[in-house]
Amino acid sequence: MNIESVDFFYLSMPEVLNIGDGSQDALLVRVRAGGLEGWGECEASPLTSIASYVCPMSHSACKPVKYSVEGMPLNSKEDIYNVSNTVRHNSSDLLQTDHTLSGIDIALWDILGKKFNEPVYKLLGYKKAYPKLPYASQLFGDTPEETFLKAKTAKQSGFKAVKFGWGPFGKQTLHSDIAHLTAAREGVEDGIYLMIDAGAAWSNSVTAANDRLPPLCKIKAYWLEEPFANMELGSYKKLSESVPGVALAGGEGCHNFVQAAAMIKHAGLKFIQIDAGRIGGITVAKQVADLAQVNNITYVNHTFTSHLALSASLQPFAGIEKDFFSEYPVELKSLAKDITQNKIVPDSDGYIHVPEQPGLGITVDVQSLKKYVVDVEIKVRGKIIYHSPKL
Amino acid sequence: MNIESVDFFYLSMPEVLNIGDGSQDALLVRVRAGGLEGWGECEASPLTSIASYVCPMSHSACKPVKYSVEGMPLNSKEDIYNVSNTVRHNSSDLLQTDHTLSGIDIALWDILGKKFNEPVYKLLGYKKAYPKLPYASQLFGDTPEETFLKAKTAKQSGFKAVKFGWGPFGKQTLHSDIAHLTAAREGVEDGIYLMIDAGAAWSNSVTAANDRLPPLCKIKAYWLEEPFANMELGSYKKLSESVPGVALAGGEGCHNFVQAAAMIKHAGLKFIQIDAGRIGGITVAKQVADLAQVNNITYVNHTFTSHLALSASLQPFAGIEKDFFSEYPVELKSLAKDITQNKIVPDSDGYIHVPEQPGLGITVDVQSLKKYVVDVEIKVRGKIIYHSPKL
Repeated sequence: MNIESVDFFYLSMPEVLNIGDGSQDALLVRVRAGGLEGWGECEASPLTSIASYVCPMSHSACKPVKYSVEGMPLNSKEDIYNVSNTVRHNSSDLLQTDHTLSGIDIALWDILGKKFNEPVYKLLGYKKAYPKLPYASQLFGDTPEETFLKAKTAKQSGFKAVKFGWGPFGKQTLHSDIAHLTAAREGVEDGIYLMIDAGAAWSNSVTAANDRLPPLCKIKAYWLEEPFANMELGSYKKLSESVPGVALAGGEGCHNFVQAAAMIKHAGLKFIQIDAGRIGGITVAKQVADLAQVNNITYVNHTFTSHLALSASLQPFAGIEKDFFSEYPVELKSLAKDITQNKIVPDSDGYIHVPEQPGLGITVDVQSLKKYVVDVEIKVRGKIIYHSPKL
Repeated sequence: MNIESVDFFYLSMPEVLNIGDGSQDALLVRVRAGGLEGWGECEASPLTSIASYVCPMSHSACKPVKYSVEGMPLNSKEDIYNVSNTVRHNSSDLLQTDHTLSGIDIALWDILGKKFNEPVYKLLGYKKAYPKLPYASQLFGDTPEETFLKAKTAKQSGFKAVKFGWGPFGKQTLHSDIAHLTAAREGVEDGIYLMIDAGAAWSNSVTAANDRLPPLCKIKAYWLEEPFANMELGSYKKLSESVPGVALAGGEGCHNFVQAAAMIKHAGLKFIQIDAGRIGGITVAKQVADLAQVNNITYVNHTFTSHLALSASLQPFAGIEKDFFSEYPVELKSLAKDITQNKIVPDSDGYIHVPEQPGLGITVDVQSLKKYVVDVEIKVRGKIIYHSPKL
């Protein structure tokens, strides 16, 4: 079969707030081939990604993403690798490419799984999928009291691991950060994995990050995530050598394999966090998972959107038993919840399981999404080159 | 004064060919502030960059570029640094950002130079601008005979340095590559710097690149540029240690400081090539030039478009006497020529000079550009959020 159509759906909450919550809008991708339908999601600016898909060619290395996708054969894994390589080759000077490719690649794996009646992780070569321990991923409260209550709620909901990030953390005083950290630990109490995400708050300042290490040690933070901007290799490396130390996690900003490889090799990370919706899809994420294994670094998914994105982000490391943490968003906006009919929910032991149904094992709830559609029209030289397709 | 308006103009040749010639379209940026006008150019997909400027916010780290630019103060260098930092902070999850910021940043420096009646390089802290030796930058011919003729013409035009790249090179057989290399050297004869640009043809294959080292040595190639994809640190490093060796050049694909820093530190480069129209503008390019100096790596501009882009790309290393090579495109399409009224042309000794006039020292030829304007309209939720402004 061949790729017959690729449709992008820009969905949004009626109001998007100026907070670090990536579930406020979404860019869904629907691919059709041979009577099958696959779905993917880009963790990306919807309008910008759509533009990169349909834009006119600038030169041989700056072609629209569309150029290397529509009409291509889709009968095997090799066909997906071919699309992935061809897109990145033909659009290497189009910066938005990797984000746009991500949702397409995810949808291609979903289709291939449906064609072969296998979950994606099996197509990737894993014999079985191991359960993952979801960490309740949420924003810090505006106040330490709010952080405490959020922590308590997460624990009461049965989560054995909790992560706080963004919000006021790292942006105010050291005193304020310590208050939030203490509140988080007091809220979840002992015996719960507690991860802290600085949301790149310190840019490249190792000093600012160093100041937080003693309090992070005190609350037994399991990791410190994104102290610096993505690819700040030197700052990461230096911080990783600090004493007392906290294990470092990072990589969500990587948008291709070589960036993730640089983070694995040069940043002193213990955890590499990959968003399949940004790095080029499941294809590239799996390459990173393989590299992480060889380098004894734990692979963790980065997911802060729908359960379609969650399933996609779990597939690349589904079969790696020792890498058992999974980011699990617990503050999704209604849009992100409404994207899927079924959800990936923790079992009675608190673990989640990669779907065993064909493809991603997720059913998109087309009907309930209609109210979120953002109508977009792009005209070039008087000709409409993109109009929001019918859901 | 404050930034009053930022206008993007998408310009294009009537026909864009599937060749590695980046001068076939252009994205010009006009910024107005305090009665002054500055111009910049993004080396980027025009439609995609425009979309990233006007798109709705997705979340706090995925804001449209516009959010951090319009209305901002513009009275000093620090104000430009502030815009640069703010854009990258507010749009860190919007992949296209750096390409879009580049043209804006360049225009801001142009304005500031006009305000203080100084060329940009002086505002950057350089006391004087040293002459640069332009290398005639062109594509390989389709046949070795064509490459030979191009080489001969470049020499006859007075160029003391010539670069060939892209075209068939690296994409066919080793035999074909050797024929092109030999033709290039025979065309320019001895005593001329001859650089070779593989255009990332070998992706990450050190073996394929290694095979070309003996013939590159034989023709006394001054450097081998972009054997691999941008940021293929390990492959670059390995090739840099090969014997016989050829000096490696790379970096044009870097779209921010940390990527360039990684290339400088980990790729074994002798030359770092930066396009101010991609890396975030003059601000970031100057930071890379400073870092290259500390690391004893030669900074070279990457420029394959207009003389507005050429002036912008020269400013960041204008005052570094020892870094005297400058990429100089010699096969510009009429659009790229028509963008500027004045040009940067080699003197009788074959050297070019950074303009001494205020700002970038380049006058945009507004009248002659009207025929190249690509009319674009973007509508979101029925409301026009971008329409090509009047030139």
